[in-house]
Amino acid sequence: MSDVLELACELIRRRSVTPDDAGCLPLIGERLARTGFRITHLRYGEVDNLWATHGSAGRTLVFLGHTDVVPSGPEAAWRSPPFEPTLRDGRLYGRGAADMKGSVAAMVVALERFVAEHPGHPGRIGLLLTSDEEGPTNLDGVRRVVEHFGAIGERIDWCVVGEPSARERLGDLIRVGRRGSLSGTLAVRGVQGHVAYPEKALNPIHAFAPALAELAAERWDEGNADFPPTSFQVSNLNAGTGANNVIPGELTALINFRYCTASRAEDLRARTEAILQRHGLRYALDWNLSGEPFLTPPGGALREAVVAVCRELCGIDPEQSTGGGTSDGRFIAPMGAEVVEVGPVNATIHKVDECVTLAELEQLPQLYRAICERLLAGA
Amino acid sequence: MSDVLELACELIRRRSVTPDDAGCLPLIGERLARTGFRITHLRYGEVDNLWATHGSAGRTLVFLGHTDVVPSGPEAAWRSPPFEPTLRDGRLYGRGAADMKGSVAAMVVALERFVAEHPGHPGRIGLLLTSDEEGPTNLDGVRRVVEHFGAIGERIDWCVVGEPSARERLGDLIRVGRRGSLSGTLAVRGVQGHVAYPEKALNPIHAFAPALAELAAERWDEGNADFPPTSFQVSNLNAGTGANNVIPGELTALINFRYCTASRAEDLRARTEAILQRHGLRYALDWNLSGEPFLTPPGGALREAVVAVCRELCGIDPEQSTGGGTSDGRFIAPMGAEVVEVGPVNATIHKVDECVTLAELEQLPQLYRAICERLLAGA
Repeated sequence: MSDVLELACELIRRRSVTPDDAGCLPLIGERLARTGFRITHLRYGEVDNLWATHGSAGRTLVFLGHTDVVPSGPEAAWRSPPFEPTLRDGRLYGRGAADMKGSVAAMVVALERFVAEHPGHPGRIGLLLTSDEEGPTNLDGVRRVVEHFGAIGERIDWCVVGEPSARERLGDLIRVGRRGSLSGTLAVRGVQGHVAYPEKALNPIHAFAPALAELAAERWDEGNADFPPTSFQVSNLNAGTGANNVIPGELTALINFRYCTASRAEDLRARTEAILQRHGLRYALDWNLSGEPFLTPPGGALREAVVAVCRELCGIDPEQSTGGGTSDGRFIAPMGAEVVEVGPVNATIHKVDECVTLAELEQLPQLYRAICERLLAGA
Repeated sequence: MSDVLELACELIRRRSVTPDDAGCLPLIGERLARTGFRITHLRYGEVDNLWATHGSAGRTLVFLGHTDVVPSGPEAAWRSPPFEPTLRDGRLYGRGAADMKGSVAAMVVALERFVAEHPGHPGRIGLLLTSDEEGPTNLDGVRRVVEHFGAIGERIDWCVVGEPSARERLGDLIRVGRRGSLSGTLAVRGVQGHVAYPEKALNPIHAFAPALAELAAERWDEGNADFPPTSFQVSNLNAGTGANNVIPGELTALINFRYCTASRAEDLRARTEAILQRHGLRYALDWNLSGEPFLTPPGGALREAVVAVCRELCGIDPEQSTGGGTSDGRFIAPMGAEVVEVGPVNATIHKVDECVTLAELEQLPQLYRAICERLLAGA
């Protein structure tokens, strides 16, 4: 059994459902300490974070990942138990195999080998892991670590995120940026009453309808060369007591912008509120900016290195995308770092029978190590 | 303690929350049987109905009421226990005091006295009571009784509904018709997906928004001399999984028309669906017509009699309204009967500390008896 497969299995065996790390980070920390890494455990609330570095001067390349996984759902729905790593048909099955214990194992193995081969490498190499990426808030994971980094003057130049980015095979798609995510909780106020006496009530559903139609039809921007246009979605809409003879007193909606670098969050907020106000609504709107958009432009050393490695190792010219959801890369980018996401195929993530092919699992440490070589060893 | 007060107290003491009659109808049936009424108990499902008549030839005047009440809510919220009739400050307190055990007691006492005084009265006088007026469906109450009446050829010419119609004092407002009520359960179909990939989903909230705005703005008719314009309300609107990163696959809405005689239910249905279809929606819409509108026009003997009695006994020229919700009168009107609703002040109905003033409770039997006198004794 190879190093990377063995470590991936050890990690999968640990039931590290957010925020419980279940011992993954100490295992990795001890291992990297033996290789000469400086290890810092950063615990915030219920969340463990691990910061491991090697080298001291020059530019800093960091691998970013998480050891927490989403729940398995009913275990009986899995062909093999989700927390018992199982090899079958050339694949490793288990919760987290693809998202992202396979990548984490590959990063650890890549770092060990790189440091063994280049003990006096220029620059600094690091690994940042959290146990709070899959949870609903991500308050105590990379967000808090980056706050801490700001306080102590810690810098990152290049960040490789190991999230499962590939579509059909390793190297076919990398993320070179992400849209921002801006959410709002909207409450539209009306006046409750009996449907037989509408003149004594104010139906917030009716009041909101024309504003909703306008918001849904609005074109927020045209996107740009790097991003598709900003998208607005009402994900939840609720009003009513259940009874069909009562006009409800309030309507609530959850809204979400996935926005590109062509718009600013404050402008989207202002334009939304202008539409609500133009329709004379009485409302309350609580905004939550969960991540600003970021882009690692072409020509940067990290982006070029990752593309070159994909071509060389995987024989593919990778699609360089800014699509998809968010990742912890959104917290690193504002530090001024280049951020690129590259990891295994994401077809089975968050599903039953999550798996990674052994072929891509074995190739991943080579890929991550080749990135190190290009950036820090002049390869 | 007067006859009417004593009977009202006996009825309030029985916890007759829909559909449980708790013995109210047998009590009344035995009492009217002793006065010479023919008694028929009509039981459908869990619901008791009572049909009592006196006389045999000529026109039929029927008093219509219900013995069931809405739940009391937390009993501790009441100043005195809801099912313990309590006299305080010139009022009788208890669940059903106003809606409508006070009226039922008054009808019984009025009928007893009228029959005692006019044992050979012309025409026929009757009392129809149900224990299923306050429930959600009203399937086994007056609706079923009227079906039965159709089957056996039973006729009703005039119907006095004892629902609490008055605004501030007995006689200030009577109902001479009611709007119809047409409900619909609408499901708008979309395609569920991740908010980060709107191009792979179809948000039913966004799809429905312009149709909703159009429905809310539509003027369905102008009303007429007897009725206010038809009113459309969306009472409930729900979509979303709770998560803010999922575009929902379906939206559901409950809609309700309170419609007047200027529109027909089938036209309202067709116009609603035309709007949904014009917006290209994939939807399912289940309609439920819970009551057609009815009107007892001016000049009818019953309406004139009730107005005259209000003037004479209460010293008020009553407002003759078609507003408000629905009542069981909607089942009687299609039999070809004149229907008028007259009862006590409705300020406290369905609330804690429901009550009726002793003054109006004592006046009610006189009012109902005076209607009998005018229509069947040539008074």
